[in-house]
Amino acid sequence: MITLDPIGVVRSPYTDKAQIPKGPGAQHDAEGTLDIRPDLEAGLTDIEGFSHLYVIWIFDRAEGCDLLSTPPNDDRPHGVFATRAPRRPNPLGLTVVRLLRRDGPRLHVRGLDMLDGTPIVDIKPYLTSVPAEELRRGWLAEAENRAR
Amino acid sequence: MITLDPIGVVRSPYTDKAQIPKGPGAQHDAEGTLDIRPDLEAGLTDIEGFSHLYVIWIFDRAEGCDLLSTPPNDDRPHGVFATRAPRRPNPLGLTVVRLLRRDGPRLHVRGLDMLDGTPIVDIKPYLTSVPAEELRRGWLAEAENRAR
Repeated sequence: MITLDPIGVVRSPYTDKAQIPKGPGAQHDAEGTLDIRPDLEAGLTDIEGFSHLYVIWIFDRAEGCDLLSTPPNDDRPHGVFATRAPRRPNPLGLTVVRLLRRDGPRLHVRGLDMLDGTPIVDIKPYLTSVPAEELRRGWLAEAENRAR
Repeated sequence: MITLDPIGVVRSPYTDKAQIPKGPGAQHDAEGTLDIRPDLEAGLTDIEGFSHLYVIWIFDRAEGCDLLSTPPNDDRPHGVFATRAPRRPNPLGLTVVRLLRRDGPRLHVRGLDMLDGTPIVDIKPYLTSVPAEELRRGWLAEAENRAR
């Protein structure tokens, strides 16, 4: 067991889940800020050199857990660990954002898919990508093909 | 505040931090397993279709937190959120692994950089990569250039 204490909060244009783009081809171009606690600002030193960041956050408005569920972009159920569904054993979210600029403890970013007010628990630099030719996307690729 | 309960444990060849490759050009080809709790096995349904997974885990053998530290692959300090250092405000680790195969609740993977026995708190499918031409890697690229 481990207890997490938020390091900051997401300021995003989304105040309701229904506003967040979902399904095949959903684009996440939303801009906003990651407002980090001022007492942790030193931890952001040199982050400006990275174009993309991982943000680990809490699905604070999800309750409970479904081991199997049908995502909005498919018509059949999949295991929770094969989806990004919010109702997970540990309600952690993970998003890759593009870092636009930093103002002190505030990071301006693009690519948010979290609700306004979402608690952030960690930020890490995005260092390497899986080459496109090595990537297989399972049920999601199949669902996208069916939707075409 | 949120409390996490591990969903499983990493079985890796590394029993000591010194065995884990670090520094410029470090390759993470280690194979091992992610042993998920049998009561959560249904959550792995359809995961076999994905070539790569995100694993979120706990640095269970790290204590305390340094907002600034000098990583093994550089000779100058950086903010903790611009590094993957273990001593973080919330001791969460994130690793991309290649999924080799599944045996029930056990995932055979390549690319581990965790110690044997590390607690796992979440697994998610790796869905998209940042295009190489858009990726900037900050102090890490500079440190690698200096090391050449």
